[in-house]
Amino acid sequence: MSSFGTAYRVHTYGESHCKSVGAIIDGVPPGLTLTNEDIQVQLSRRRPGQSDITTPRSEYDSVTIQSGTEHGVTLGTPIGLIVQNKDQRPHDYTETDFFPRPSHADFTYLAKYGLKASSGGGRASARETIGRVAAGAIAEKFLLEAYGVEIVAFVGQAGKVKIPFRKQDPANLDPEEDDEVLSEEYVQLINTVTREQVDKEITRCPHPETSKRMEAAIRAAKANNDSMGGTITCVIRNCPVGLGEPCFDKLEAVLAHAMLSIPSTKGFEIGSGFRGAEIMGSKHNDPFVEKPTRDGKGTRLGTSTNWSGGIQGGISNGEDIYFRVGFKPPATISQEQETARYDGSSGTLATRGRHDPCVLPRAVPIVETMAAIVIMDAVLQQNSRAASAALLAPLTHLPPTMVIPSSKTVSQILAGDLKEASKEVDLSVKPKDDGPAEQ
Amino acid sequence: MSSFGTAYRVHTYGESHCKSVGAIIDGVPPGLTLTNEDIQVQLSRRRPGQSDITTPRSEYDSVTIQSGTEHGVTLGTPIGLIVQNKDQRPHDYTETDFFPRPSHADFTYLAKYGLKASSGGGRASARETIGRVAAGAIAEKFLLEAYGVEIVAFVGQAGKVKIPFRKQDPANLDPEEDDEVLSEEYVQLINTVTREQVDKEITRCPHPETSKRMEAAIRAAKANNDSMGGTITCVIRNCPVGLGEPCFDKLEAVLAHAMLSIPSTKGFEIGSGFRGAEIMGSKHNDPFVEKPTRDGKGTRLGTSTNWSGGIQGGISNGEDIYFRVGFKPPATISQEQETARYDGSSGTLATRGRHDPCVLPRAVPIVETMAAIVIMDAVLQQNSRAASAALLAPLTHLPPTMVIPSSKTVSQILAGDLKEASKEVDLSVKPKDDGPAEQ
Amino acid sequence: MSSFGTAYRVHTYGESHCKSVGAIIDGVPPGLTLTNEDIQVQLSRRRPGQSDITTPRSEYDSVTIQSGTEHGVTLGTPIGLIVQNKDQRPHDYTETDFFPRPSHADFTYLAKYGLKASSGGGRASARETIGRVAAGAIAEKFLLEAYGVEIVAFVGQAGKVKIPFRKQDPANLDPEEDDEVLSEEYVQLINTVTREQVDKEITRCPHPETSKRMEAAIRAAKANNDSMGGTITCVIRNCPVGLGEPCFDKLEAVLAHAMLSIPSTKGFEIGSGFRGAEIMGSKHNDPFVEKPTRDGKGTRLGTSTNWSGGIQGGISNGEDIYFRVGFKPPATISQEQETARYDGSSGTLATRGRHDPCVLPRAVPIVETMAAIVIMDAVLQQNSRAASAALLAPLTHLPPTMVIPSSKTVSQILAGDLKEASKEVDLSVKPKDDGPAEQ
Amino acid sequence: MSSFGTAYRVHTYGESHCKSVGAIIDGVPPGLTLTNEDIQVQLSRRRPGQSDITTPRSEYDSVTIQSGTEHGVTLGTPIGLIVQNKDQRPHDYTETDFFPRPSHADFTYLAKYGLKASSGGGRASARETIGRVAAGAIAEKFLLEAYGVEIVAFVGQAGKVKIPFRKQDPANLDPEEDDEVLSEEYVQLINTVTREQVDKEITRCPHPETSKRMEAAIRAAKANNDSMGGTITCVIRNCPVGLGEPCFDKLEAVLAHAMLSIPSTKGFEIGSGFRGAEIMGSKHNDPFVEKPTRDGKGTRLGTSTNWSGGIQGGISNGEDIYFRVGFKPPATISQEQETARYDGSSGTLATRGRHDPCVLPRAVPIVETMAAIVIMDAVLQQNSRAASAALLAPLTHLPPTMVIPSSKTVSQILAGDLKEASKEVDLSVKPKDDGPAEQ
Repeated sequence: MSSFGTAYRVHTYGESHCKSVGAIIDGVPPGLTLTNEDIQVQLSRRRPGQSDITTPRSEYDSVTIQSGTEHGVTLGTPIGLIVQNKDQRPHDYTETDFFPRPSHADFTYLAKYGLKASSGGGRASARETIGRVAAGAIAEKFLLEAYGVEIVAFVGQAGKVKIPFRKQDPANLDPEEDDEVLSEEYVQLINTVTREQVDKEITRCPHPETSKRMEAAIRAAKANNDSMGGTITCVIRNCPVGLGEPCFDKLEAVLAHAMLSIPSTKGFEIGSGFRGAEIMGSKHNDPFVEKPTRDGKGTRLGTSTNWSGGIQGGISNGEDIYFRVGFKPPATISQEQETARYDGSSGTLATRGRHDPCVLPRAVPIVETMAAIVIMDAVLQQNSRAASAALLAPLTHLPPTMVIPSSKTVSQILAGDLKEASKEVDLSVKPKDDGPAEQ
Repeated sequence: MSSFGTAYRVHTYGESHCKSVGAIIDGVPPGLTLTNEDIQVQLSRRRPGQSDITTPRSEYDSVTIQSGTEHGVTLGTPIGLIVQNKDQRPHDYTETDFFPRPSHADFTYLAKYGLKASSGGGRASARETIGRVAAGAIAEKFLLEAYGVEIVAFVGQAGKVKIPFRKQDPANLDPEEDDEVLSEEYVQLINTVTREQVDKEITRCPHPETSKRMEAAIRAAKANNDSMGGTITCVIRNCPVGLGEPCFDKLEAVLAHAMLSIPSTKGFEIGSGFRGAEIMGSKHNDPFVEKPTRDGKGTRLGTSTNWSGGIQGGISNGEDIYFRVGFKPPATISQEQETARYDGSSGTLATRGRHDPCVLPRAVPIVETMAAIVIMDAVLQQNSRAASAALLAPLTHLPPTMVIPSSKTVSQILAGDLKEASKEVDLSVKPKDDGPAEQ
Repeated sequence: MSSFGTAYRVHTYGESHCKSVGAIIDGVPPGLTLTNEDIQVQLSRRRPGQSDITTPRSEYDSVTIQSGTEHGVTLGTPIGLIVQNKDQRPHDYTETDFFPRPSHADFTYLAKYGLKASSGGGRASARETIGRVAAGAIAEKFLLEAYGVEIVAFVGQAGKVKIPFRKQDPANLDPEEDDEVLSEEYVQLINTVTREQVDKEITRCPHPETSKRMEAAIRAAKANNDSMGGTITCVIRNCPVGLGEPCFDKLEAVLAHAMLSIPSTKGFEIGSGFRGAEIMGSKHNDPFVEKPTRDGKGTRLGTSTNWSGGIQGGISNGEDIYFRVGFKPPATISQEQETARYDGSSGTLATRGRHDPCVLPRAVPIVETMAAIVIMDAVLQQNSRAASAALLAPLTHLPPTMVIPSSKTVSQILAGDLKEASKEVDLSVKPKDDGPAEQ
Repeated sequence: MSSFGTAYRVHTYGESHCKSVGAIIDGVPPGLTLTNEDIQVQLSRRRPGQSDITTPRSEYDSVTIQSGTEHGVTLGTPIGLIVQNKDQRPHDYTETDFFPRPSHADFTYLAKYGLKASSGGGRASARETIGRVAAGAIAEKFLLEAYGVEIVAFVGQAGKVKIPFRKQDPANLDPEEDDEVLSEEYVQLINTVTREQVDKEITRCPHPETSKRMEAAIRAAKANNDSMGGTITCVIRNCPVGLGEPCFDKLEAVLAHAMLSIPSTKGFEIGSGFRGAEIMGSKHNDPFVEKPTRDGKGTRLGTSTNWSGGIQGGISNGEDIYFRVGFKPPATISQEQETARYDGSSGTLATRGRHDPCVLPRAVPIVETMAAIVIMDAVLQQNSRAASAALLAPLTHLPPTMVIPSSKTVSQILAGDLKEASKEVDLSVKPKDDGPAEQ
């Protein structure tokens, strides 16, 4: 189904050659100021033709809000969005139409539906992402206004060119120790990088030295009629604590779902990711420490390291959420390819035309907006729970194992009084068999 | 929400110390033979205490079907399943209860709900996975009977000990070429490994030499009161073509969601995965070739390489689906840890008891059964589409771009006549501008 | 949420004064011929200004398919639909804006969202129904082509003018007997009425004598600046057996949901309805009889009476499904009304302008198309089940209580072999305690 | 699917002769005190054998909470519930098994699934309602504690015996006027009736004189081996304003869905219901008036009549919600019935055993608890919206058509400041074309 989300729901429609692509976004809270321009920003960062290292075409995807706002304010009703397609005519066919393009969706769409759009992959087209980018742009606006949430993604790797993710080169480090530590440059980017810094570089890799090498590699691929993949890192800052739903909708699980739904993605990792598989538990655990709150006026419980990537037990813990998404190289290349036709006969497929040698720079806003949709959905679900629990009478006689001290209530803890509440706990402990729970 | 799936839906309940854990499974087709034993097999592979390198406790998780079958056959109605908990009493508290355990769900559950189960993470407990393993065992049985689908997972890595995934050691290969190629041993495992081979090894790593080293590493971690993570590779063979729903529910996106919902997971990659980010498009594309069908009696359209991992454009293409899941080390260790209490004061947390130094062997059936749930759900959705489309009158005048030749219908192609149908296409081609579609 | 359906899903957007109203329809099977005209038919029956007894305005709601078809055939991907609004400007305000209109949605929308569209009820506007009528028109087309399903609704009552539903007037019938029996005219309409007959009458009441009286009553209401409600009866013929999902999504429950979601509706009854509450069980039960099949070539199991309204245990039984929907009079009238302002002060509200004295004639296509959406959704769900069960091996040793004789399989019965299968049952019965099951 | 609800979700399992019936309830807010006894109350009102006019069997349905609570408080995680079945053995078969019972679910279940439980209707059994009654009992407890919501249902009609719903007997009233007005007795019951009053009568009809006649009628039906239906009226008091989701999930639409999902129901009407179809708009509209708040300390905007039944535009308006549900007579009777066997041959079906002549008294708690589930779900959805909107900055420059005066915000209005806010509106009105919006 072309829908995503539970409380913040996005529905999209549209292929490459139909009249328009668009979306309906349900669950936008009322009272949010919102204009076409708020949405256009991310659509423009996504559109083709922004530089000569992505597609050289200069289309412009202009969005129009159809419903759900009045006087520039959301009504709380569904927001309809439309972006016209420039090329609305199914094309004539040629000999290439008798080949399913390798690693493209031609074959699988035909097998799934028994027919296919003339453009081949139909909804597998990157053009479909317009609707979700628009939906995510609205979510971003709400999250920033309501919580100060910042979501920034950047290209960390294109082909074999990558930001130094680890502390040292694999060649001369202590393999028992140093290779497990993120490099200072990478940590710095996760902690501080802004969209402005990202957009300064044509590659959207905010590490200028790496960006230069990336650009050269992409130009080389283009010259060779070839294509290349890469990875995008995304960080979510100031995310509220308590987001994510056990057990199936853990926050990282929904993020993974969202990211792997972006065309051409092949992998997702959160926090320590696959590298976490190599680190011993005693080192991987993130100890708790008292930290200053964001406004600097108080303290809160945080962690001193962040291998967890801001999520523990599937629920956000208030630290930065960061993850990495792997993209394969685009399937459409102008090199000749030996492959079979639909009828099984082999032949040479030559696809002319201008193709995107590397989609990574344009995928940055897609990653950000899909992340925003996930966080927004989790926020709306958690706000329902917290607001409803707050209506109940205080519970005053629960044991400290449930960590509700005598004078504090569920709603106070939900409102952030965890630390204060905890201070009043009766510390006269009883003996306990602390064997592990059943698993 | 504790539900997963669209047409095949699994709902679970239960924490560590409540009366029971269980599940309701909705959408099981009627007429499937099914007994407790069919489900127990995977539950027994999941349960603690199978060997001294996982938890030494010898519990037995015995499942009872409550509803939805009669005379050993499914009725098509929801199947209720229950597994009793042995330890149903909330424990008394002790000083450890004033610490949120590092990288555990204690802190986040308290922040999310304003209170927490005495066992801490509540639904983040591995015990919650019982319900899904049971649900997946039913799905596996259907998929095997209906399509011959085989799902086999195995431990490929524990800590830094791993099966040689790549062709050679990074030390002495041609970095422009050979490191991109999967090793023969790994490819062989993906192509042929069986559950019997996996279960022969105490580590569930079916590469005996690696398994021995893994076992040693796990015993060392245990001796050191430490824990370690690893990776699990899973392959799905004989998967029907056409599974997966554009755009948000691409098959790999739902698999990623399912895998990242398993406790302790940190990463997911399908086919070439993150390595695919480094391979040029001209090499990464999987050319189509004519292949023998599974029964050897005919031919079908397949691919000669499988970087796609059996999925193109989000939809299964009939090749083996394989993916890898990364697990962090378990958070609960017996080493002393410096960390903060809920009230922010720092202290030393010492958790006694017997803990699992490495959950990977026990996670193998969880990965398999979650994969089965995903495939089952996709099968039920696609069968609805194909059966409904087959009721429509034949379409006979569509252009070859939609690849429906004059004498074939949508339903015939859905039934697998793609190759035959394609033979009759009129090859008198017209000129076409084959520039890329809008993106 | 502005979504309806499970496997056939409709999402709508739009208010009275926004740019456009529209819908995304997901789950349309591929290979259905479909053009704007197929959808326009029902939209035109719904639009205002068809006659002077509904609104006199002569707007034309022209629909454009945005996506999901090519060369006039559905692709299986979501269908985007748009109808432009003529009046896209929020109006200036006047004194009437300080009154919540009685029995309108002004007050409740403001209370729900904290603000409201300038037109008041926002999504409560009848204009919102355009999207669902369009979605239902597609469903109708599929159902007719695939199964010959006919859905016909008609106005049975306007105000106190009604078709004689019961056999005789309450005045002179045998109260113990005759009042329970539907009149011959009404039964005849349920059995045979066509849309052509319905559209012949300006009132869409296909009982000409009653229609004349209705028209007079509506004109009188209009002259008096008043409004009136009524009831619509709908019949679904040739509906496949086996539709509807236990327990919450019984077919009549989803029909009731669909009908009560239409603006101004106040009641729903299926089959015998509220009158069924008065009939004794011995009379209300519908006995089974052998009936000819629709093509006249064979026999099938049917019922001799149809108090059930074509649904038993929540599942369609193959007889005609018929139900009745009650509508209140429109809230907007031009008479002066004494009522309170938002601030609680009382005053006189005078709403000028042209208003619909009776929405019933225009609601007929809305009832039909909502019914079509419900049946379509149930068909897609049941086809998934039947097609999946058909893949399993035959079961041959089940007891006759499950009514699967030795040589027949679940899939054969699902394909309609129920009667044939039953013939082979071993009739050598065993004694049984036939006390009632637990309830 | 055996699931109901969006934010408050109920999943049930179980047939008549399986091991147990039960439910998983997801979305219960944390911090609610809850024990088995809280749930048992309504289950005991539902169970068979409460009096000799319902089934004489004396089973006891004893519920056990399996998960989701600790120390008698909800954790916010799913609540698993189980009720053991007494009779867990599929029965032997006899000649009655070759008949599909008239108006029962035997035939349709077999047609739907290709096989059926030995008890026939499977999930159509009234026993299935146990899970939902339990789920609703939890919802009731929350709604009472959080908002003071009272839900009371009662039997208003059994067969032809009914409470005088209308002002006078049809015989001698003014047909233009009086028959439209609810009787004082009925209005009184809607306004004030309590569960205690309802339970005082064996029939659960709190109108003692009518109750006596009902009892006699039910005993007569029982003596005659016959069965009878009736109607249940339900009122929801103190329901928060703003519940219900446009457009498809209008509050009355979801209530209708919930009620028609109860076995044996044939009709639903809200507020004026079908009678509303006969009343002119000028009379049916509910004028707004200033009313005292529930605590008597302030005033609020209410309506002087309540034909709307507490819902306008699909959203609750703060007045009492009342509706009526029609039930057919139970299909299982001990009279001999002429009907056909599965193979089409005709015969005489004689079902011995003790049967329920009238299910109405036992259905009262089912109606109440299903209503509670609907309201609870709507509350959780609305709380998400209100809590999220409250995080946004105040909007201060919107026109009065959106009714947000200069000094009030969306969140203030959502918190109930509607009347106060409205006082500050600038009343210097501008001219406006108040023609109706497009429809």
